Amino acid sequence: MQDLKDTQSELDTRQMPIDRVGVKGLKYPIVVRDKAHRSQATVATVALAVDLPQEYKGTHMSRFVEALQEEKGRLDVHSAVVLPGKLLSRLNAQRAHVEIEFPFFRSKKAPVTGMVGMMDYEARFMIDACAGRKVDFMLTIRVPVTTLCPCSKAMSEHGAHNQRGIVTYSVRFKGEAVWIEDLIDLVESGASCPVYSLLKRPDEKWVTDHAYNNPVFVEDLVRNIAIRTENHDVFSWYRVEAENFESIHNHQAYAMIERNLARETV
Amino acid sequence: MQDLKDTQSELDTRQMPIDRVGVKGLKYPIVVRDKAHRSQATVATVALAVDLPQEYKGTHMSRFVEALQEEKGRLDVHSAVVLPGKLLSRLNAQRAHVEIEFPFFRSKKAPVTGMVGMMDYEARFMIDACAGRKVDFMLTIRVPVTTLCPCSKAMSEHGAHNQRGIVTYSVRFKGEAVWIEDLIDLVESGASCPVYSLLKRPDEKWVTDHAYNNPVFVEDLVRNIAIRTENHDVFSWYRVEAENFESIHNHQAYAMIERNLARETV
Amino acid sequence: MQDLKDTQSELDTRQMPIDRVGVKGLKYPIVVRDKAHRSQATVATVALAVDLPQEYKGTHMSRFVEALQEEKGRLDVHSAVVLPGKLLSRLNAQRAHVEIEFPFFRSKKAPVTGMVGMMDYEARFMIDACAGRKVDFMLTIRVPVTTLCPCSKAMSEHGAHNQRGIVTYSVRFKGEAVWIEDLIDLVESGASCPVYSLLKRPDEKWVTDHAYNNPVFVEDLVRNIAIRTENHDVFSWYRVEAENFESIHNHQAYAMIERNLARETV
Amino acid sequence: MQDLKDTQSELDTRQMPIDRVGVKGLKYPIVVRDKAHRSQATVATVALAVDLPQEYKGTHMSRFVEALQEEKGRLDVHSAVVLPGKLLSRLNAQRAHVEIEFPFFRSKKAPVTGMVGMMDYEARFMIDACAGRKVDFMLTIRVPVTTLCPCSKAMSEHGAHNQRGIVTYSVRFKGEAVWIEDLIDLVESGASCPVYSLLKRPDEKWVTDHAYNNPVFVEDLVRNIAIRTENHDVFSWYRVEAENFESIHNHQAYAMIERNLARETV
Repeated sequence: MQDLKDTQSELDTRQMPIDRVGVKGLKYPIVVRDKAHRSQATVATVALAVDLPQEYKGTHMSRFVEALQEEKGRLDVHSAVVLPGKLLSRLNAQRAHVEIEFPFFRSKKAPVTGMVGMMDYEARFMIDACAGRKVDFMLTIRVPVTTLCPCSKAMSEHGAHNQRGIVTYSVRFKGEAVWIEDLIDLVESGASCPVYSLLKRPDEKWVTDHAYNNPVFVEDLVRNIAIRTENHDVFSWYRVEAENFESIHNHQAYAMIERNLARETV
Repeated sequence: MQDLKDTQSELDTRQMPIDRVGVKGLKYPIVVRDKAHRSQATVATVALAVDLPQEYKGTHMSRFVEALQEEKGRLDVHSAVVLPGKLLSRLNAQRAHVEIEFPFFRSKKAPVTGMVGMMDYEARFMIDACAGRKVDFMLTIRVPVTTLCPCSKAMSEHGAHNQRGIVTYSVRFKGEAVWIEDLIDLVESGASCPVYSLLKRPDEKWVTDHAYNNPVFVEDLVRNIAIRTENHDVFSWYRVEAENFESIHNHQAYAMIERNLARETV
Repeated sequence: MQDLKDTQSELDTRQMPIDRVGVKGLKYPIVVRDKAHRSQATVATVALAVDLPQEYKGTHMSRFVEALQEEKGRLDVHSAVVLPGKLLSRLNAQRAHVEIEFPFFRSKKAPVTGMVGMMDYEARFMIDACAGRKVDFMLTIRVPVTTLCPCSKAMSEHGAHNQRGIVTYSVRFKGEAVWIEDLIDLVESGASCPVYSLLKRPDEKWVTDHAYNNPVFVEDLVRNIAIRTENHDVFSWYRVEAENFESIHNHQAYAMIERNLARETV
Repeated sequence: MQDLKDTQSELDTRQMPIDRVGVKGLKYPIVVRDKAHRSQATVATVALAVDLPQEYKGTHMSRFVEALQEEKGRLDVHSAVVLPGKLLSRLNAQRAHVEIEFPFFRSKKAPVTGMVGMMDYEARFMIDACAGRKVDFMLTIRVPVTTLCPCSKAMSEHGAHNQRGIVTYSVRFKGEAVWIEDLIDLVESGASCPVYSLLKRPDEKWVTDHAYNNPVFVEDLVRNIAIRTENHDVFSWYRVEAENFESIHNHQAYAMIERNLARETV
């Protein structure tokens, strides 16, 4: 096998370093930690990349897959943050970038009957490592919520238009990462009402009334979440985006707030 | 050029005819007819296929693109129905299958202020031709609507959960095709309220009240549309599907009715 | 709670039965059986529906979620086929329809070095039950493969254009279902070469040479799979579709064969 | 109508300004300029947003749709760059953000026969305006290309694996914007071969041979484009990303280079 030409290792003379090179769209079964059950099995879509100095023609793509394979699917917050460091040494790189997206599940009790249904949220880890510096870890969750329009409520005889909204909430931590479950709670508390997978009639009455009593514009939604975020002294940065899939339109209402909370820049 | 081997025309001895072979995912700018403006420019995604007898190794893929190219983008209901016939002769086939999907636009007045906004709908032509038989033409439109839950309204103190729903409505005609605009009107009339792209406050009050006064389950929505369809003597077949993107759940409520209205089978 | 109005159970007088009503887009963690490991954890997207007789205004949507919840995520071929039967009794229905889609994983050895990578395939169960009749079970898998163009090879000085293709293969069984792994093997054997997640240089040489020596048109691909399917006496019906994401075009080449192999109609 | 409560204009005391608020996912028929035909009709997906000072409870969403409506669909590079300025005055804002995505079509001659087919590319305008400052305009195009692997070619008996790649190329200009067509040419010249919608057999031979004679890694592809970009003195910034849909894998190879070419920061 030794005589197979290693084209990637050839010298490149074009003086053009590459910011990121790697693999994208790898599906992988993983196990993540979970407040209620200790761990849950799910399926991740993974992207792995490193920088490439100007003198190399190419990277060795198979080493990314080998690095992922070695983790044997245990990719929770703690093991994920060390993965880019492993890429640095395996690929002789200065910078590494890792993205891991997966559906995250949570048992959720209906608000009146207490019946349990399974809710899904999208989660994403984005981790950047740079040789000799602290790893940068960003956690993103996508949380579906109910929003009920305050303007429609104020003007109308009965009711108000309401709809499913999706909040995309990204945070960086000052120290330890907090549970995904706690972030979901924080987001849901800023909406007109959480959404559920299983609701019986008494529950449906409750969520209808609860949303009516807590109207929020898409602007209120991101502000509520921003204020709750800043009230906790654990985040160094956040971005909250909300999209309302308006029940009265064929387009979305959108709002976004992004803030750096660290004294020094991240 | 004559000496380039024509592998596709070689004899195939495996005795396995192919039902459909062709191209998919071709994007093409087209002009369709339109009740208000006579014609509108839009962008289609096109699939073209024919059958292949067992004795041929392959079809000639480039001929599909040539056939499309010859239409010069005029692909309304009338020119589209003759396209599969052209494929039959160009490719010496017995059966041809054509799918053309495109966003269809319509100026729509807000219900109170009369302000005009542009609404988009997805439309699809599906056309099958078989040598010596009548062409089969199926028209599909996807129409976003507002649905307001009757159960939530009946139980709750104020208001009711409501959401955007998408109706996928497919029809075959006894004779002449009807305008896409008329099909959209038929679908919208079965919902709690149509959706609009431009609504000022008086309009928003109107749509909120109108939806509250016309609650429909996803079941009512498909039934309303089915009944209106059967009341017109122009359709030989229909299928109506509705998906409600529930504002209180992270999944959809779904209903479907399909009926053959022709005396003889289509 | 008893006084909450049960709007769904009200009488409907429009004489319009509904073919399917239920829920769609439910995400759920499931465990499926697996030839190598006995079982694997994955994530499913689920649709559940029943028919609704003309006299009922609505179905009880929450009962679908309860039915799914009761399975506790064990949804392999054997437990999935009984799920629609449970819906029949829980919802007093005559017909039930279940769809379960999920990524299915398989450890796969590189052809020369034997290094192991994880490959993902999309699988789907579609199950229809009708009171008093045999359950109809259709299994679909989507398998990525390499295809190399015979015409390009025959004409060109060196090499031939090749690309990733996706085969969508659906089968019904005469008796017992066969392993998903065996269906994947059947599909891959009809292509120019299987695809892998982890290939070292000797493996990459092997797959390049192997594909070059096994050129297939999209037509050959579906015929090869059709012939292998008919050679096994376990299938009562199949449909094989292939889409080649042509490396030389921005559209797909497509072919499809569908056959009923049962004496009696399914 | 005057007595309808204007909830959005109420005072907000939470001291939380919003970075962006507006609408997303609006579909709109537009006309863009085009080197060959002067103009072409296409369909855009539009997002419009402004900032919101901390003292206002909400923005007026309908004004975004009105602003778009006023353009009457003429949204080429020149009219698009003034759109955010109009939002600033219409919504009393300090910053405005506009995104316009659309398929862009181009007639393309096959390399040997000269036969003409229509090729589609995705284009995107991203425009940011800030009161009293120069508008920031970023143009992005997505160009499909053929890539043929140099390592596979070097090792194998015959041929080499090749595949469709997608280049996402974003630029900012020092002065006048250049034609989208010229950017497409620049990107295609960095690949193993351009892709075409219509190729006859002599053309297919040509593209197969041409790709074989111009092998590129995903790394070469972004470097080739980066070097060509820097050779023109018209760009102040660029980012080039490439994704190869590997014919031998079920995942993508990825590379990215981003550079600021302006003396001062943009």
